[in-house]
Amino acid sequence: MGAVKTKRMPRAVREQQMLDAAVEIFGRRGYMAASMDEIAELAGVSKPLVYLYLNSKEDLFTACIRREAKALVEAVRAGVHTDLPADRQLWDGLQAFFAHTGQHPHAWSVLHLQARTHGEPFAAEVAAMRAEIVAFVTQLIAVAAREAHRAPDLPEHEVAGLAEALVGAAESLAAWANTTEGVSARQAAATLMNFAWAGLGNLMGGRPWTAPPEPQPLT
Amino acid sequence: MGAVKTKRMPRAVREQQMLDAAVEIFGRRGYMAASMDEIAELAGVSKPLVYLYLNSKEDLFTACIRREAKALVEAVRAGVHTDLPADRQLWDGLQAFFAHTGQHPHAWSVLHLQARTHGEPFAAEVAAMRAEIVAFVTQLIAVAAREAHRAPDLPEHEVAGLAEALVGAAESLAAWANTTEGVSARQAAATLMNFAWAGLGNLMGGRPWTAPPEPQPLT
Repeated sequence: MGAVKTKRMPRAVREQQMLDAAVEIFGRRGYMAASMDEIAELAGVSKPLVYLYLNSKEDLFTACIRREAKALVEAVRAGVHTDLPADRQLWDGLQAFFAHTGQHPHAWSVLHLQARTHGEPFAAEVAAMRAEIVAFVTQLIAVAAREAHRAPDLPEHEVAGLAEALVGAAESLAAWANTTEGVSARQAAATLMNFAWAGLGNLMGGRPWTAPPEPQPLT
Repeated sequence: MGAVKTKRMPRAVREQQMLDAAVEIFGRRGYMAASMDEIAELAGVSKPLVYLYLNSKEDLFTACIRREAKALVEAVRAGVHTDLPADRQLWDGLQAFFAHTGQHPHAWSVLHLQARTHGEPFAAEVAAMRAEIVAFVTQLIAVAAREAHRAPDLPEHEVAGLAEALVGAAESLAAWANTTEGVSARQAAATLMNFAWAGLGNLMGGRPWTAPPEPQPLT
């Protein structure tokens, strides 16, 4: 209170500008190759100010991961209206997910590639976000199963597995959509709905895929 | 020729033992925490011999990634008989995939988590393996679409997107199956077939999931 000298711009605003610049540079260059000089330059501040506010390259990277993970989860949650049917919720959630990752490709690169590529503490931050999204999708599938009334015994394990599959597919598609010319968020979401919902829908309706009766002899 | 002193065991055999030990220790401890002492001890050799044969911790890790990536791709290919119907090929391929990742959890941890978590050169090795698997699945889906005859215009982008989704789902499920009590390879494969094939099957049969007509207003 009063001890921090007032600048032209409040500290909170400056920090967000530094994080904006850092996400872009980390996303573009990768964590290792990203330089604090370039980040400071893009943010329009001095390098010492970046260190004063964010402490170190590691802490700056962690702050980027936290901010972008929170923004992504909030974007998905904001896209979903829990009073709509389950397939509509999933469609809306997927569209929000692909729109956000498409509009923030550097942020997605930081979360999906950079954070997992540079050591356990960063990876743990992303794992926490992922667990939250998996829990959200698990609940969605469980609600859908209850709605359908026809799969009262869809086991908990099965629901958890389906949620893991769906989240893994979405992650993979987001990376692909961002590096493939001409794939819109809506198209990516539609591809995944075609792939997943038509399958889930059958499952809920008591029409699972039928495995060949004999298990393969596993040697 | 002749310059290398003959040991009780041929070099190639010793190297494989070192790699076996290294995969287990890297998979258990993570790349950073893994110690060359522990790897040498588990392999039953001296630490200098590990350095003599494999050069450095980085090179040892790279050798682990290469060997395990090759083994995984070969296991999947060996499980698939290309003269069978497409859904049977996918089922067999998925069972082979989950059987291999389940029987070699440390190897899967090295490929899926460790290699992506510790820097670009390692991540690039895994990306090459992943690209090979995606290409294999893409071809499988394209063949299935031709077999079905009812989706002659399934666009190339759509097939590529479906393959990305399927591989992402499989990766995610393998990690989940390996950390969840009581999930067998067959169950994991069945979950993914339920999720994916029932959906793909509908798509091939000209019954795509129908999106709500109005695009969401994206702000």
